Amino acid sequence: MIDIPNFNANDENYMRRALQLAAQAIGKTSPNPLVGCVIVKNNEIIGEGFHHKAGTPHAEVHALRQAGEKTKDATAYVSLEPCSHFGRTPPCADALVKSGIHRVVIAMQDPNPHVSGEGINRLREAGIQVEVGLCAAEAEKLNQPFLKAIQTGLPYLVYKVASTLDGKIATETGDSRWISSESSRLYAHELRNQLDVILVGSETVVKDDPALTCRLPEGRDPVRVIVDGSLKIPLEAQVLSPLSSATCIIATSQAASPTKIEHLNNLPQVEVWQYPTARHVPLKKLLLDLVTRGWNSILLEGGGGLAGALFQAELVDEVDFFIAPKLIGGKGPSPLSGLRIDKMSKAIPLDIEEISLETGDLRVRAQVQKSYTAED
Amino acid sequence: MIDIPNFNANDENYMRRALQLAAQAIGKTSPNPLVGCVIVKNNEIIGEGFHHKAGTPHAEVHALRQAGEKTKDATAYVSLEPCSHFGRTPPCADALVKSGIHRVVIAMQDPNPHVSGEGINRLREAGIQVEVGLCAAEAEKLNQPFLKAIQTGLPYLVYKVASTLDGKIATETGDSRWISSESSRLYAHELRNQLDVILVGSETVVKDDPALTCRLPEGRDPVRVIVDGSLKIPLEAQVLSPLSSATCIIATSQAASPTKIEHLNNLPQVEVWQYPTARHVPLKKLLLDLVTRGWNSILLEGGGGLAGALFQAELVDEVDFFIAPKLIGGKGPSPLSGLRIDKMSKAIPLDIEEISLETGDLRVRAQVQKSYTAED
Repeated sequence: MIDIPNFNANDENYMRRALQLAAQAIGKTSPNPLVGCVIVKNNEIIGEGFHHKAGTPHAEVHALRQAGEKTKDATAYVSLEPCSHFGRTPPCADALVKSGIHRVVIAMQDPNPHVSGEGINRLREAGIQVEVGLCAAEAEKLNQPFLKAIQTGLPYLVYKVASTLDGKIATETGDSRWISSESSRLYAHELRNQLDVILVGSETVVKDDPALTCRLPEGRDPVRVIVDGSLKIPLEAQVLSPLSSATCIIATSQAASPTKIEHLNNLPQVEVWQYPTARHVPLKKLLLDLVTRGWNSILLEGGGGLAGALFQAELVDEVDFFIAPKLIGGKGPSPLSGLRIDKMSKAIPLDIEEISLETGDLRVRAQVQKSYTAED
Repeated sequence: MIDIPNFNANDENYMRRALQLAAQAIGKTSPNPLVGCVIVKNNEIIGEGFHHKAGTPHAEVHALRQAGEKTKDATAYVSLEPCSHFGRTPPCADALVKSGIHRVVIAMQDPNPHVSGEGINRLREAGIQVEVGLCAAEAEKLNQPFLKAIQTGLPYLVYKVASTLDGKIATETGDSRWISSESSRLYAHELRNQLDVILVGSETVVKDDPALTCRLPEGRDPVRVIVDGSLKIPLEAQVLSPLSSATCIIATSQAASPTKIEHLNNLPQVEVWQYPTARHVPLKKLLLDLVTRGWNSILLEGGGGLAGALFQAELVDEVDFFIAPKLIGGKGPSPLSGLRIDKMSKAIPLDIEEISLETGDLRVRAQVQKSYTAED
């Protein structure tokens, strides 16, 4: 028999607080999920915490520590099922049992095969009242990259692009500075701060020579990955300079010059990943390898060719369009020039999640519908 | 000394009602403006009306008729200055004076040189208290086409277009059915119902053979205007058929075949306007001529070439983009392929007025900023 939990408004408020806490570490916990925990006794929060970084204590441990001696008969709200296994830290389920807490409300089960219901079982066996499913949709949303990675081995990929209202990412002569507002560009740096990896094609590096760093004062640089099948990257490219301590990975193929590979591998922070393919980088394999390294979320910033290939391979999860209220016309490039679909009825369908005008540009965030099948 | 009127919330509510009434005739009054009138006595509406169609009674007359004998000492709210001249109907200012009304609140002065303050003077001279400027911005917005036409001789031109989120109006192979949702397409017919003229290039007629009619049950067909410099229009084109009783104007140049012109002129509802230009239709002249005929608002539906030329000539006032939540990629056409701007800093700036997701597509309505100067 399934027990249907009977959550009340207080429960929901505490769980929302747990989710809010979890979100404070966005971009910092990979490969671990974001988790927040709130401990409540007599309708008062006596402890709260969130997971900060892989290898450091889990959310429950922070919250229990803060609650101290007062945990007996309290309720814990956790945004993800407490772990039941010894990883780099001991199981949180055991810590909750030991604390004397009498009820645990959990937003969602952890699909990690090491947990996957075992944490819940452990709590129930110890006589704790456990209720699962409060704010489950929000909790899933928060951990999209973790959930996709653990379930498929692939990272969660967001394509961020700035275009004019008439769909241009540059003029016919290649000018693209600037399409979007300063405020939108700042926001783009916030995305670099929040996602694990920034991914671009070698064309973008050759043409724009971007540093691909996060320029926010409190930000951290994402891992930088360049798809560069024939290893065209200039040795003086900014991404190769020691300006940033973030890893820079150049994914290439058998077409790459061995001397250049050796030279690049000698640079600090730079790694060349050479695939056994003739000329193109196998994109799905590259993404699987990035997850293996512990990076679950990818920010794709262009160009249109690489973006098209990733859409074609059905590897993109979300689009984040910054559409400037201006018109440029002409035959300049579009956000997805590398994708070719011949019939409107086969267009890739999106589910719009957010529209805003906050930055002066129209921002459209949308999920790629999972059901679509790209053209052959 | 300027007297600063002291409007209260009641005044504003009655004026909003007058504007609401005026809007009921959108698309039906050209070349006249939209006008609504509300007559109020002891805080009760005793008469209301709006101008339905050029040549028929004005808003004030409808409202006075409804109010009948009770108008003494009442207040009239009018969305536009009452007329003071004998046109096809006698002056409304005189009718208001005769009615014994003691106060007239007017949203805005009529810029029509036949009125232009004269109506207000006439009322004041008769001892009526007159206050001007309540909801002026809304009143101007409502009559944008009339105001532009009377002030510049040019019509108010709206470019309506449907694109994918990545800025394509068709696939590489030319397929464009359907980009937007059924509900957006219905809305497009509402636009055809509301604007005086629908304007397209001959390419669109040759390629898609549209009827350019309004397919809403209660709708009326706009005047149809085809820009066709070399008179390429096929004689069997739907716009030439007697299916619609709306006038169809083919604007052409000296490059047109005289026999074809004669043939077309013999068709019912069809008029050929031949300009003394070698090959291209002089667009500004065409628009001036449309206003002279009494048509103040134009709905431009494509294609990208004609749209580009009209933007280049700074003749477009508003864009109405229906952006479908889908991606198509490739090198298919964009909404403004005929416009060529070489630097992003010279892009045509827009002021977004409305964004909505009502029809399942993202609708973006924006005004073209008047300050821009198109490229040479």
